Parts: sequence; C-alpha cells; structure tokens
Amino acid sequence: MITFFNAKHVHHQGAVEMFRGALLPCFEVAARVERVRDELRRRRLGAIEEPSPFDDAVSHRVHAPRYVDFLRGAWDEWVALNPAHENRDALPSVWSVRHFSFDVGTPLTRGAWRAARSGAACALSAAESVRSGAAQSAFALTRPPGRYSGYDFFGGYCFLNNAAIAAQALRDGGVERVAVLDVDYYHGNGTQCLFYDRDDVFFMSIHGDPRTEYPFFLGYADEEGAADGNGCNLNIPLPRGTEFSAWRAALAHGLRAIAGFRADAFVVSLGVDTFEADPISGFRLRSEDYLRVGEDLARAGLPTVFMMEGGYAVDEIGVNVANVLEGFEACRS
Amino acid sequence: MITFFNAKHVHHQGAVEMFRGALLPCFEVAARVERVRDELRRRRLGAIEEPSPFDDAVSHRVHAPRYVDFLRGAWDEWVALNPAHENRDALPSVWSVRHFSFDVGTPLTRGAWRAARSGAACALSAAESVRSGAAQSAFALTRPPGRYSGYDFFGGYCFLNNAAIAAQALRDGGVERVAVLDVDYYHGNGTQCLFYDRDDVFFMSIHGDPRTEYPFFLGYADEEGAADGNGCNLNIPLPRGTEFSAWRAALAHGLRAIAGFRADAFVVSLGVDTFEADPISGFRLRSEDYLRVGEDLARAGLPTVFMMEGGYAVDEIGVNVANVLEGFEACRS
Repeated sequence: MITFFNAKHVHHQGAVEMFRGALLPCFEVAARVERVRDELRRRRLGAIEEPSPFDDAVSHRVHAPRYVDFLRGAWDEWVALNPAHENRDALPSVWSVRHFSFDVGTPLTRGAWRAARSGAACALSAAESVRSGAAQSAFALTRPPGRYSGYDFFGGYCFLNNAAIAAQALRDGGVERVAVLDVDYYHGNGTQCLFYDRDDVFFMSIHGDPRTEYPFFLGYADEEGAADGNGCNLNIPLPRGTEFSAWRAALAHGLRAIAGFRADAFVVSLGVDTFEADPISGFRLRSEDYLRVGEDLARAGLPTVFMMEGGYAVDEIGVNVANVLEGFEACRS
Repeated sequence: MITFFNAKHVHHQGAVEMFRGALLPCFEVAARVERVRDELRRRRLGAIEEPSPFDDAVSHRVHAPRYVDFLRGAWDEWVALNPAHENRDALPSVWSVRHFSFDVGTPLTRGAWRAARSGAACALSAAESVRSGAAQSAFALTRPPGRYSGYDFFGGYCFLNNAAIAAQALRDGGVERVAVLDVDYYHGNGTQCLFYDRDDVFFMSIHGDPRTEYPFFLGYADEEGAADGNGCNLNIPLPRGTEFSAWRAALAHGLRAIAGFRADAFVVSLGVDTFEADPISGFRLRSEDYLRVGEDLARAGLPTVFMMEGGYAVDEIGVNVANVLEGFEACRS
C-alpha cells in the first residue's frame, strides 16, 4: 500500500459547526489524519509520500469552474467585506432557495405556531376594522414579525406574513388597490415575492442595501415586478449609515410612486430597526424622527393598517413605535 | 388608532440564532411588543383589543397549505424524532438546494482552499499510481474529506470531491469501469450526484438511514441512478444501532451487485465513523471489525484507491483505518 499524505491539511481548521440545532466545536479536526499517519508508520504499512503538483483543471472534470473559482477566492472576499472577521470562519447561513426555511437565524420553537397564528389574527382584525370603516387606522401589535415569510417558507424571524394576510384580506373584502409600505431596515423579501406578479398590490420598501445587508439575495433596485405586476414593486436600497434626511427623501420618492398607483388603502410594515441604536441594523434615525414618519404617512389620507415588524433596541422600541402612531394620528385629526 | 395585541406572542421565544457567522441570543424577544403596548397605554393612543378568532383557511390565501400544515405540526415532529431535544429549538441547518453550499456545519476557513486542493492532489496521485500499475493499491490520506462536495457545492466538511476526482482520473486514464464504494456512516450525496446519470461509474453506499440521519434529503434505497446510469447507483441505508454482522451482510450484498457491473477498479470512500464510539454517528462497528472490512474489499481482487473520509473518534481513528488497510493487504498478498 502506498499512501499519499496531504501535509497542507493543517491550513484548514474550523472553529465551530452547527450540529442538530447546537453550535459545537468542529468534529473534523487536524488530529484525525495525523493519528492515521502515525499508526501507518508504526505498523510500517508501506511508503508515505507527498502527492504530485496539482493542476486545477483536473477539478473541472467533476466540479463547476465557477465553483472552483469561488472556493479559491471566497476567503479573501469574506475578509474584504468583513474586515473585523479576519479571525472568524465564514459559516454559510443564508440560502436563496429553500424548502420551508431559508436561513439559520430563525429558531422554530415549541410555541412558534401558536404565537404566529395569533399574530395573523391581529393582522386580520386590524385589516377588517379598517375595511369596514370601524376605524380609519389600526395597528396589529404582534411578534414574531411576518414580512420575511413567503408562500412556503419561514425565515428572518417570520412564520406567517401578517402584512400580506392583511393586504389580501383588504383585497378580498372589496378594496381594489392596496399599497404595502415596508419601512423595516431589512428588505421584506417574503412580501415582495407574494405580490411580485400582481397589479392589485403595490409593494414599496426602503431598506439596507442587500449587497451588504441581509437577506442579500433580494431587495435590489432593479426588481420592479413581473408579468401583470411589472412596475408595481419599488425597492429603495440605502447604504449603511444613512441618516433621516436621506431616508425621508426616499420615503417621499416612494409615496410619489405610490400616488400614481392610486391605492385605496395602505398596509405599513412598521419596523423601527432603522433606529440609530438598533443592535443589528445600520441606519441612523433618532426617536423624534419617527413622529415625522407618521406624519408623512398620514398625508396620503388613506385607511391605514400598521403591522409591527422589526426593531430590536428594546428599551426604545415603545417610544419609537408610539411616535410613528402619534405623528400619524396628529396629522390625521 | 385601534390596536390589536397578540397576547399569545409569549409562546414563541427562541434561544439563539445565527447572525453573521456567530451564534447569538435571539434579538427577536418578547419584551419588544410589551414595551410598545406599555408606551401606547401610557400615551392613551387608542383602544388595545384582542383579535377575533382566526380561521387557518385565511392563511391559505397567501401561504401554501402544505407549508401551513408543516408549521402547525413541525414542533411535535421535531420532538418525536429527537426526544432529547424537547427543550431545544429546531434551528434549520440543512437545505436540499443551495448555491455553493448546503449546510451550516461546514465553516469556510482561511486555509480551506489550500488544504482541499492539496487533498485533491493526493487523490490524483493515488489514482495515478494505481492506474499506471506502479501500485496495486494506494491510499489518499487527507482532510478535509470530499464525498459531500458536488458539482457546484460544498458541505458536510467537504470542499473538493477527492473520490470523484480519483474515479474520473481513472476513467480519463483509460480504466473502463470504476466502482465507488462509500462506507462512511453518512450518505455521500456529492459523489452520488456527480455520477448519477452515468453508466461508467457505479456508486454504492452503506450509511445511516437518511430518514433520521444527515444529510436527510438523499441516500434512500429507491435512488437507483437515472438515464444511462439507471441501475448504477445502490444505496443501502441501515438504522441507527446497526452492528457489524448486519453491516457486513450489507457490504456483501453491495459487492455482489458491483460484481455484475464488472468494475475494473475500486475507489473506496473510507470513513470509519461507523465505529461504535464515534461522537456523531450511530453504527456499532468495533476496531477489530475493520480488519474484516479490508479483507472483504480485497477479495474483489481489483486495483483499489482508498480515500480518507469521515471518522471523528480521534483516539481510535488511526487503529481503525490501519486495520482496514492491513486487512486488505493481508488478504491480497
């Protein structure tokens, strides 16, 4: 038996891996092949040699060239995009295609279904109270949020798409044209996907640029809707660090676009993770800015259903959300 | 403003989520909506009410019925399959479709490319030494392993598919029929996919039943190859707890099937995570059993290239692998 030993194996040693729902130290460790080599030597089981030089073109006989290119350059890209992560492995965690789920950031808990279903009930009651005229505006105060959830997938903390359920309920209740305004920091890919080819629901979203921000695979400005829905999807990605003046200009731009759509009602996916102190987001809105957001939304003069979505700065989330609603009410009354 | 509050939100509280490569406490916490409710109350911003009862059929207006069914029952299925996990959230971590990667168990490290490329060099040198007749058998002693890697994806600790590169090199070097025998505990989905529609490379795998074992989405007995490769793929899934007598009978069955294929050479994906003390696997082979495995493989009398694959009981991995090779050599000489 001749053995060819990969002495360069030591270059690769992962820190942690996900295993059956827990993050554990990697099982695939360097000592594995060292132990085998030592045992072969001890038993004198034939020569142990270095392999011949390797031509990457051989890989292309079984692997896609663009995959091999990806592997070769992926680490440098990871560090270039995340300079602070030079000592942290790249552990893939978001996929653009999925069966029922698309990321590893959304634990499915014992009570997820009960909580999500009751949240959909809030969305529906809020939509119905506005549709019937019982209220001019209504707020579905719920978690988990909903906007990442699509036709057959959960992710981004979301299980049932409350905003989409509300928009659809308005449509089913006779409202002809509904606009969903998604002002959460992260692009609401679930809602976008659900209405992407329809011309009865306009989707507008202002969010962190998906080139660097979750969910990465959707939320770009060139996604304008498809088929009947062409022109009924408006994404306004903004860079990390965007302040309120630029954000508000984007909202004004979005509201002008929606005016052309002649919506009969608004559904607002109200995330306040645009807040400057949010722990996982990158815009710089301050608490008082949310009063202005509410005022700007109110000026459209439409029946409006608010959905609680993101916002993770818990100490300020009450003030920030209440500011939007108070600004809205003040401007309407 | 009327607010509908989801009091059942408290049923859902995740423990941890994956965020930019680190496992962190969940940001989407119960306090979020409590703080908002409190602030609305404090400012007297309208009534706060419970939603009306909810009919799940409303969800079907935007969500796939089978997705809603999945959500409703997923927790119970999780606990039924993993009774020990009753207090651990289900955090999705393996997807069946992917862009370049299919799980979150495989960190991409700074040196992964260098280590993997050098491993492919080992595979190629081992294949060449056997093809040329310089050796009757050869062993590529390398890590990371390779058998999960497919045409354009990594995962399962694997980046480049060493076994497939070796099998393809044998073919390109004039060997007409190659059989890949994958005896690792986990199904080698990457290798299977690469040769699934080809009749020049037979893939045979004995592994933990994917109904409960990683990678879950492939490795079933009814996967028999496609197109020209129909009949050239043999999966033998065995339940957790399988002992050597049953495992060896499966190997004999596999070798008989391969005899009909009239292979000219073997590539053995040699994982020893079938070992009883392996930390992440479920078969019960003992160290001395691996001598028998080597003998059984040797009796085919074919040029054989061994690839180091899985096996995570580091203290015993040397003995177990050396036993396979020693049993093989003893039977051949």
